[in-house]
Amino acid sequence: MRVVVPFAAREPKTRLADVLTPAEREEFSRAMLGDVLEAIRETDHELEVLATAPLAVEAPVTVDERSLTTAVNEVLAEAIEPVAIVMADLGLATPAALDRLFDTSGEVVLVPGRGGGTNTIVTRHPDFRVDYHGTSYLDHLRIAHELGASVNVVDSHRLSTDVDEPDELLELYLHGEGSAREWLVEAGFEPTVQEGRTRLERSE
Amino acid sequence: MRVVVPFAAREPKTRLADVLTPAEREEFSRAMLGDVLEAIRETDHELEVLATAPLAVEAPVTVDERSLTTAVNEVLAEAIEPVAIVMADLGLATPAALDRLFDTSGEVVLVPGRGGGTNTIVTRHPDFRVDYHGTSYLDHLRIAHELGASVNVVDSHRLSTDVDEPDELLELYLHGEGSAREWLVEAGFEPTVQEGRTRLERSE
Repeated sequence: MRVVVPFAAREPKTRLADVLTPAEREEFSRAMLGDVLEAIRETDHELEVLATAPLAVEAPVTVDERSLTTAVNEVLAEAIEPVAIVMADLGLATPAALDRLFDTSGEVVLVPGRGGGTNTIVTRHPDFRVDYHGTSYLDHLRIAHELGASVNVVDSHRLSTDVDEPDELLELYLHGEGSAREWLVEAGFEPTVQEGRTRLERSE
Repeated sequence: MRVVVPFAAREPKTRLADVLTPAEREEFSRAMLGDVLEAIRETDHELEVLATAPLAVEAPVTVDERSLTTAVNEVLAEAIEPVAIVMADLGLATPAALDRLFDTSGEVVLVPGRGGGTNTIVTRHPDFRVDYHGTSYLDHLRIAHELGASVNVVDSHRLSTDVDEPDELLELYLHGEGSAREWLVEAGFEPTVQEGRTRLERSE
């Protein structure tokens, strides 16, 4: 299967602006991209990156400056084989979790992101197209149903956790296994328990 | 396997106080408990409830007013067979997700809750004990390792989502299949998209 990882190369992770500087957000997002590519590489599939700007990574890169939805739909329109779209900020992704996704049957296979997004899509239907605006998980279910495509949903905490809010840094700290977690540790983040809740805080 | 569902009968779901009245929180937590019990009932295991006060539900109820950790450890100390501890606020739990948990091998099988908690535990080790204070997921890993017990972790968005914060109501709305989701709909909650993020809001 072709596995395509879209990556927004400019001003990534703006929702982490309260806890990371722009330069840190760039470093951190590159570390997560590296981890996601590494996890995919350990599965038995063809890897490529779809980036908004040229990028030095160990994978073929296609540059498309247009919106995520437009760029991904261009890939799907030209594809003649099954395609997986895997978001670049799935910092908890492991080869085992990805294999479970790639091995799930169905013309359309979805993993919802927390908050109504869509973290991964596998399409084996020639006419399926994406729409990443709004509550995209519900839109993708609807689009698949309108096509009469068979749909399966994979139940994975690792793949449903896209790391783009401060709370999700804690998930990465607790469950991550790659360089992005290491980056957080080196940047001084550590868990603290306050009033029965665990938060990831940065020591000064 | 014995499946034990602890339930705090008094003043449940205080973290939802900003969006639900005390009476609503009680109704809502009972609806989730009912859904969790129903999902377990559809698997092939023995169900029981461990409650802090007497409770009318279709399952044997043991009343223990002590803390969650103390009450659960009493159950484990007396158990002569494998025991699963499943939290009562797993509003997204389905029989399929629970079967995946119950069918996972290992002396200790954990499902982390988002934020560092522990949403479900299966123990087949006579000496394993729980500690639900603080970042309990890390504590449970440590306790199991200190015993030399084999550990497996189940990767499930449905079981890792305990519904006790307003954000998690959206997950229940999007993915729930039981009476607690219905309760939310009837209480007037619906998703709205603002600045690219979906939130569950209540119409007045």
